[in-house]
Amino acid sequence: MRREAPPLDPRRWPAAPWRLVETAHEPADLGVTETLFSVANGYLGMRGNPEEGRDAHAHGTFINGFHETWDIHHAEAAFGFARTGQTIVNVPDAKVLKLYVDDEPLILGTADLEHYERSLDLRDGVLRRSLIWRTPAGKRVQVDSTRTVSMVERHLALFTLEVTMLGGDAPVVVSSQLINRQDGEDEYHVSEHAMGSRGDPRKASRFPARVLLPRISYADALRTTLGFQCARSGMTLCVAADHAIETEDHHEVVHRAGDDLVKAVFRVDATRGRTLRLTKYVSYHTSRGVPPRELSDRCDRTLDRARSHGVAHYHRAQREWFDAFWRDADVEVAARVDGGGPGAAGMPARDGRVASPEALQQTVRYNIFNIAQASARADQQGVPAKGVTGSGYEGHYFWDAEVYVLPFLVYTQPEIARNLLHFRRRMLRAARQRAREMAHFGALFPWRTINGEEASAYYAAGTAQYHINADIIYALRKYVEITDDKALLFNEGAEMLVETARLWLDLGFYSKRQNGKFCLHGVTGPDEYNTVVNNNAYTNLMARENLWCAAQTVRYMRDNFPEHFQNLKHRTGLDSGEVEQWQKAGDSMYIPYDEELGINPQDDNFLDREVWDIEGTPRSRFPLLLYYHPLVIYRHQVIKQADVVLAMFLLGDEFSLAQKKRNFEYYDPLTTGDSSLSACIQSIIATEIGDMANALKYARYAVLMDLADAGGNVKDGCHIASMGGTWMVMVHGFGGMRDYGGQISFTPRLPAIMNRLRFRLTVGNQLLEVDVARKECTYLLKEGTELPILHMGKEVLVRRGESVTLPVRQPDSTE
Amino acid sequence: MRREAPPLDPRRWPAAPWRLVETAHEPADLGVTETLFSVANGYLGMRGNPEEGRDAHAHGTFINGFHETWDIHHAEAAFGFARTGQTIVNVPDAKVLKLYVDDEPLILGTADLEHYERSLDLRDGVLRRSLIWRTPAGKRVQVDSTRTVSMVERHLALFTLEVTMLGGDAPVVVSSQLINRQDGEDEYHVSEHAMGSRGDPRKASRFPARVLLPRISYADALRTTLGFQCARSGMTLCVAADHAIETEDHHEVVHRAGDDLVKAVFRVDATRGRTLRLTKYVSYHTSRGVPPRELSDRCDRTLDRARSHGVAHYHRAQREWFDAFWRDADVEVAARVDGGGPGAAGMPARDGRVASPEALQQTVRYNIFNIAQASARADQQGVPAKGVTGSGYEGHYFWDAEVYVLPFLVYTQPEIARNLLHFRRRMLRAARQRAREMAHFGALFPWRTINGEEASAYYAAGTAQYHINADIIYALRKYVEITDDKALLFNEGAEMLVETARLWLDLGFYSKRQNGKFCLHGVTGPDEYNTVVNNNAYTNLMARENLWCAAQTVRYMRDNFPEHFQNLKHRTGLDSGEVEQWQKAGDSMYIPYDEELGINPQDDNFLDREVWDIEGTPRSRFPLLLYYHPLVIYRHQVIKQADVVLAMFLLGDEFSLAQKKRNFEYYDPLTTGDSSLSACIQSIIATEIGDMANALKYARYAVLMDLADAGGNVKDGCHIASMGGTWMVMVHGFGGMRDYGGQISFTPRLPAIMNRLRFRLTVGNQLLEVDVARKECTYLLKEGTELPILHMGKEVLVRRGESVTLPVRQPDSTE
Repeated sequence: MRREAPPLDPRRWPAAPWRLVETAHEPADLGVTETLFSVANGYLGMRGNPEEGRDAHAHGTFINGFHETWDIHHAEAAFGFARTGQTIVNVPDAKVLKLYVDDEPLILGTADLEHYERSLDLRDGVLRRSLIWRTPAGKRVQVDSTRTVSMVERHLALFTLEVTMLGGDAPVVVSSQLINRQDGEDEYHVSEHAMGSRGDPRKASRFPARVLLPRISYADALRTTLGFQCARSGMTLCVAADHAIETEDHHEVVHRAGDDLVKAVFRVDATRGRTLRLTKYVSYHTSRGVPPRELSDRCDRTLDRARSHGVAHYHRAQREWFDAFWRDADVEVAARVDGGGPGAAGMPARDGRVASPEALQQTVRYNIFNIAQASARADQQGVPAKGVTGSGYEGHYFWDAEVYVLPFLVYTQPEIARNLLHFRRRMLRAARQRAREMAHFGALFPWRTINGEEASAYYAAGTAQYHINADIIYALRKYVEITDDKALLFNEGAEMLVETARLWLDLGFYSKRQNGKFCLHGVTGPDEYNTVVNNNAYTNLMARENLWCAAQTVRYMRDNFPEHFQNLKHRTGLDSGEVEQWQKAGDSMYIPYDEELGINPQDDNFLDREVWDIEGTPRSRFPLLLYYHPLVIYRHQVIKQADVVLAMFLLGDEFSLAQKKRNFEYYDPLTTGDSSLSACIQSIIATEIGDMANALKYARYAVLMDLADAGGNVKDGCHIASMGGTWMVMVHGFGGMRDYGGQISFTPRLPAIMNRLRFRLTVGNQLLEVDVARKECTYLLKEGTELPILHMGKEVLVRRGESVTLPVRQPDSTE
Repeated sequence: MRREAPPLDPRRWPAAPWRLVETAHEPADLGVTETLFSVANGYLGMRGNPEEGRDAHAHGTFINGFHETWDIHHAEAAFGFARTGQTIVNVPDAKVLKLYVDDEPLILGTADLEHYERSLDLRDGVLRRSLIWRTPAGKRVQVDSTRTVSMVERHLALFTLEVTMLGGDAPVVVSSQLINRQDGEDEYHVSEHAMGSRGDPRKASRFPARVLLPRISYADALRTTLGFQCARSGMTLCVAADHAIETEDHHEVVHRAGDDLVKAVFRVDATRGRTLRLTKYVSYHTSRGVPPRELSDRCDRTLDRARSHGVAHYHRAQREWFDAFWRDADVEVAARVDGGGPGAAGMPARDGRVASPEALQQTVRYNIFNIAQASARADQQGVPAKGVTGSGYEGHYFWDAEVYVLPFLVYTQPEIARNLLHFRRRMLRAARQRAREMAHFGALFPWRTINGEEASAYYAAGTAQYHINADIIYALRKYVEITDDKALLFNEGAEMLVETARLWLDLGFYSKRQNGKFCLHGVTGPDEYNTVVNNNAYTNLMARENLWCAAQTVRYMRDNFPEHFQNLKHRTGLDSGEVEQWQKAGDSMYIPYDEELGINPQDDNFLDREVWDIEGTPRSRFPLLLYYHPLVIYRHQVIKQADVVLAMFLLGDEFSLAQKKRNFEYYDPLTTGDSSLSACIQSIIATEIGDMANALKYARYAVLMDLADAGGNVKDGCHIASMGGTWMVMVHGFGGMRDYGGQISFTPRLPAIMNRLRFRLTVGNQLLEVDVARKECTYLLKEGTELPILHMGKEVLVRRGESVTLPVRQPDSTE
């Protein structure tokens, strides 16, 4: 990790335990704040663009899975290269509520603002803005607005706008729009370039031609509708808005409809002191191909219901939803104020700047809040790398959900975890086809995709990441172990187990040169700075788990659930000999180990490589991938993100503590942290081996990834995986929670700056609260009957209602 | 090598020692015959399309180095990926001489032909066609034509057409055109696809928009002109034609000019028995940016001179040119008719079909002839992979010229060899820039290019082939050793040596894990089925030569030519310590060796890979690259082309015979021969180790690569490297010639089917004739004074005019 996370400026971001607040409009980094103030429900996401539509770095409204396809043109093609590009579409914008007073527009960047506050409330997910504008004519106007994407009805978004003339009367106009922005209007919309031609592979492509073909456009008194179909993918979308206006002043409504813009314009002769209140109900419906006309009916139904309930109802429901969410998911942290002086975000920053203790709580909650925004109503879809807050990584699903988000969901929102596993199951057919194309038996899940087809155009850091198969199975196993959801395992999971185990068996071979061990060649591990390697330790370890888990599950079904077993045989053509082959391959799996260094080499050749001179590389040349040709990177010992170290977290019971220490200490100086998926894992392992300085440094980086724009690319969307990582840093890292084979254990270790850590875990139908203080840890079973756990290696049975307090010795304790 | 070369059908290709002949028009494989009947001089090449313009698989006229550029769009870009695509342009077609009798067009595919013969004469490079056409009206017409691209004046091409009405009078019209064909007219012209999107990476890209922008178009009585400029590269071109008509019949000339088509139309009231003779002089001039108007003046000058000399003059000059060429370059072979029955092409084919003994001679000469057509007047350009016979591989320069064509040129046409080295020197500046971009010191030559910039869009089988640096230096060293051309070495070569040596020193490192040896990681060797590997044996061996040669040359200059040395220091900023560093790196170079197998592993991991089941792979799935994802290929022991085996030829004195045998026997069963660069090298080494069955099989494949379309892609152009390989098979293989450090040696080994092999070698200013029979070999110095050689390991001094005959024992001799 070359860079430390920049400190969070407390003047810019006032500490508030349940809100993200800004008190001044800052035009310099609109891209960042648009992302940070996004409201979303996992299906529908709206970036924090101002109601007025200007200024914006990138207008953005995204619907999970709503994508256009395109032919990937490889500069030099080869057999089996991904053919169909898939890119999330920036859908028509329903956020626009332009405000004119005396016919002068409110534009934040130039307006004379007497007061400004924008806040995102983590308890109800409502974005609120309040400002007092002194118009060019010198009239003071109070403008208050709210924006909500409903968790309860995923197709619904709600907007309110209140305008009060504080000084003098004036004609006030509010233009409420639905607009499909065209090419070149901002960064997210097209250029003349072909797809994928931009320098930074982490950004989305642009389309060279119109994506959304107009299908419906109409407006009547208060309701406006736009319907589209994607030119290539054929996906359809309808967005409709309904309005309610409340004012005692004289007013009229005018409407206009065009292909890409419909609007309802409210003209009010506003009188001083009276408040004009406009409510805008918006509904989005999407489909793989249902005609937009039909989607329009669905929008109408949503809107009719919403109007009848009214905004207050939904705000209440939203609050109730989040109350329930936080009851299970909150992580309470308390920074120490007595010693050392906590830095920004409650952790000391290099420049010594100090923030309030509440800042730590705020940043942790903000990250958790955004996991909800990314996943809660994804329903039948996956979780894109950026959630629905931006088009970074094209809106693709990677392994992020399984490895970085599932742990949180399994323990706090198991129903959402189940949805995500079900979603993968739906992709199994495409994964089977992909395996055939790659000359394999079984199924190979795509490294990145929306529709199930491999969309990774650069195979070395894409298709070659076969580990995604094992990552999915890992998540499946965790989910089943904790929830004991046999229905999912038998009906969906078992088939995935069979097909992935088949893939590994087919990929690998028993190598004479490795004493007959089972080897996996030509794959890429999580670390994308070493690609197409032999025996990547992470991959081999995870594949072994996959093989074992498949063998174990199939045997278990055969012996205990013959009917399910027969069904599975029928669906997969399972042969009786296969299970033994998986077991044998797993048992014989080659795990790289270097006797001399006592470490697990990341792959067969890792130690042969020249060590990259990280210290001698200018800080401006990170991330390396943007400044060095892949060949240059690949021929060095240099790591983008935790790889062996990640395996030591996921499969922690397969390494001794001494082994973890040796591996961590070898790899840590080689790790650039150029990936946002790295710091959280490094922090967890650093904590486990007692390296609290690094644990804190990496925790800080993970927690501040988005709020402090540590990677410099928050404008492209939130780093959802790192946000999941924040929860993991707290619970798995400082809370020391592990769950091997369903056995939950705790070895809490608080960093010196923390006094307290409290979180709750849902285990099946039990709810356990864990409350870590510096000298003791208290366990309380709030729901359920009794739960056996391990505390500091010792078995403890926690019974409902009886709190158990046990001593903890902090690693850096001098007490 | 999975496939054997298909036999050459003697009915299709009548044996003729100095000609390629076809006696029937065959519409089924127009693409192949268009390539085979190409006429070219290394600058200008015209595919063997019929004069009438129809039918054609692909009209083609190519000018070496005349290219369009385009932005390479990477589906997923990364730093340092090649940015500028370069594609040879199919320039306006001047071959068209449409013939109408009674207003009926002659179209070969549908015409009723009483007689047809087309031949390419290897002694004068003239393409001749003679036919008797029975027109739809039943009139017999004799049509004779010739086509010549001048070796003497490289901007000049000549066409003659004679039409004689054999039965009845008729109006005869000849429309002589210059035409720039537009999109979609045939395969070489554009589609809607973006660049590089076609499945077969060996083919050229297509352009999505107009490439040649019209600049000049005019026609007067007999002269027509078209001028263009490339839209992106800015290169300019002018083509002009002049005509002479000889007929006793009444005639008139009409001319037309349009942007893309100019024509002179000759209308003749032809009388039975009289011959109408039309001569068309064509000149092409090209430039990087000189205005087409100025090029038009150059065309006029060429045409004025050509007209004044007349066609007969140029045909004589062409014959003289080829007489001189063959004097130095001919390889005479005699097949045995006494034993075994020679198969097609003088070599036994599996199906036992027998061809005349002349066929072997014909095929060998045809290949040598085409090296001349690809290189003779390349002058300041390189030799594209397909010469100027097609757009395959985009008209790019690879290492083919240095490794496969230079050996022939150094020993037969040293001036052309010098031109090619000078051409590389001109690219040194771009190679320096590329090295910077790749974070290296020194110079890194592009894997494929026209203008000096790297154009390889797939780095794993492109940029990663660092060995091109060493290949260029290898060719330089061979040239200097044989010609003793110190001027080239000091003025151009030394700088290339310094910069390439710097590159290797920078790329490699002293590896503790290899006992402090100097290792080269992350490169691709010649074999593109194993990419981005560590310590590719070929690369390390060749880099060692490069380092040594640079150190030796610089020391030699320092000690003997201080002025040149100072000049070199000035140009390169050479530091005194560098030379020792190169020497040390070379001396310490790690060369992979496996004790157990006694072989040189192709790279550090080669032996770890699983062996590809070549026998079990259907023949229809070769070449593998078209049927398997690169990852699948890369993770196996399977070889596209000779790699270690090539090193054993180029650096034969660094391997013992036993070592060669072990290596060959290990690699041969793993080699698919999916590259046309492989068979010739395999044949040479097979010969050296006495494996004459394989030697013959591979020789046959190399010799028949184009004539029998062994690879199935001759339609895209000739395989110039394999043609050079044909010469190598004869001289280095069966002739057993080697030249280590300038010392020439012979160990002739004729395959059982050959009786005789005679060739000549130019060594500096001496000309040696070598005449190998089955029991003896005769050396005769035809020019020069005396030449020390080794015959079967023994020193022999050959003096001018004294023939030396020495015994030879053939490896398979039973006599």
